[in-house]
Amino acid sequence: MKSVLLYNIRSRHNVGSVFRTADGAGVNQIFLYGYTPRPVDRFGRLVEAINKTALGASEVIPWFEVEVIGDFIKQQQAKRIKVVAIEQSAKSVVIADYQEPDNVLYILGSEVEGLPEEVLAMSDIIVELPMCGTKESLNVSVTAGIVLYHALTRKK
Amino acid sequence: MKSVLLYNIRSRHNVGSVFRTADGAGVNQIFLYGYTPRPVDRFGRLVEAINKTALGASEVIPWFEVEVIGDFIKQQQAKRIKVVAIEQSAKSVVIADYQEPDNVLYILGSEVEGLPEEVLAMSDIIVELPMCGTKESLNVSVTAGIVLYHALTRKK
Repeated sequence: MKSVLLYNIRSRHNVGSVFRTADGAGVNQIFLYGYTPRPVDRFGRLVEAINKTALGASEVIPWFEVEVIGDFIKQQQAKRIKVVAIEQSAKSVVIADYQEPDNVLYILGSEVEGLPEEVLAMSDIIVELPMCGTKESLNVSVTAGIVLYHALTRKK
Repeated sequence: MKSVLLYNIRSRHNVGSVFRTADGAGVNQIFLYGYTPRPVDRFGRLVEAINKTALGASEVIPWFEVEVIGDFIKQQQAKRIKVVAIEQSAKSVVIADYQEPDNVLYILGSEVEGLPEEVLAMSDIIVELPMCGTKESLNVSVTAGIVLYHALTRKK
């Protein structure tokens, strides 16, 4: 079981791109938190900018809204799901040293602020990607691709 | 030495995103072929849609135009650089079985048509990403992230 939670992602294109990539990577479900745009509006209509970038994957992968992040993380952990935050932090491990658990929830944070301390403190593992150049981070949908394909791009 | 060639990529956002990711992955240079948009226009002005998505990385990573693709590939190979095409093909190996050479040029193709047979036939290796869901491909900038970070996300 592989799930993704998008925490306060602002861009509809990023949300759509994560849906498309998640479909490719065999993700089972996506959770949306905070102001992350939903794939349908309050009248049940598809949001075009998301659906187009997702190539329709937002109609294929089940998605759910999360209201209280702390309760949600605890519920996941009670089901023996490892909660993996993707963030640069004093406690993070580099992705080369990370092995994907059988049951995992990845949490990806806001394009600008990343993930808050509350989420990092509750996570089982914090994983970071190496940055070899002059910039501090990657685009969140590219980060999602690298992380969600991590287990699929190495020998079993 | 790690290089990337973008072959007839149409979207300026995809080009900008590849520049940003390439900076993160420590890519040394980027080659642009065909109608792939250039980071500056013919008056030497920065193209805003590329520079913004790249977070300025198009001013940091050296980039060059390629005119004749066959000659260019031969020149790279004469310098003992392995040419790696990213494409689904009868001859492609899955990325889990691929190990990055010390000197490598990755070729990423058009969002819609992918890479032509001419390029695939001249490449040293063709690498494909697994697609576990309902869609046939990933976004090209996400693909670039997975491929360029491949060697960085595994143990040495």
